[in-house]
Amino acid sequence: MTQNDIAITPHPPYYAVIFTSHRAHIGGEEYIKMAEKMVSLAQEQPGYLGHESAREDLGITVSYWESLEAIRSWKMNGEHLIAQKMGREKWYSAFKTRICLVERDYGMEELG
Amino acid sequence: MTQNDIAITPHPPYYAVIFTSHRAHIGGEEYIKMAEKMVSLAQEQPGYLGHESAREDLGITVSYWESLEAIRSWKMNGEHLIAQKMGREKWYSAFKTRICLVERDYGMEELG
Repeated sequence: MTQNDIAITPHPPYYAVIFTSHRAHIGGEEYIKMAEKMVSLAQEQPGYLGHESAREDLGITVSYWESLEAIRSWKMNGEHLIAQKMGREKWYSAFKTRICLVERDYGMEELG
Repeated sequence: MTQNDIAITPHPPYYAVIFTSHRAHIGGEEYIKMAEKMVSLAQEQPGYLGHESAREDLGITVSYWESLEAIRSWKMNGEHLIAQKMGREKWYSAFKTRICLVERDYGMEELG
């Protein structure tokens, strides 16, 4: 992934998409390239606010969005549709996508 | 972490707490023990539904809950309060906690 930091997001409410996945044992270089491309593409979408990503056995990617409409547009993006299809058919053995309304947030600085 | 799988959660709506963190360069064994203890304790809480966790540079832990009340009770749990204090003072250089309402979810199986 090209970015690996805590996302800087506006005051709630905003939306989060939690994507949790197990990789199948194929993919490698092709998968990494596509994942990086999807991050770049997502960043160009209207309503994109940021993302966070980590993988051990389990991979968790959270992307943040201004609205459900922005999430819907990104889901229907042509290149993203191809990536989703390859994800289902080749790269992931299992995944779960959760669409969430972020109601409240706080960081270390707010706790003093 | 003792569990490392995609959480099996009920039909939405339910709640998610996304905890994203950067580790400071101290902690080690003590941190791992406390983290494992917190997972065990969380699992005993009323309203706990599951959790998912992955760490590279960035750590992401998502826990799932039946209600805001369940999240509040867990946040105020005595042993958890001590762990939170140690997290702020020793283990994390930065973190962000996001409280979210999961409105919709789907997995690979729902997509056919």
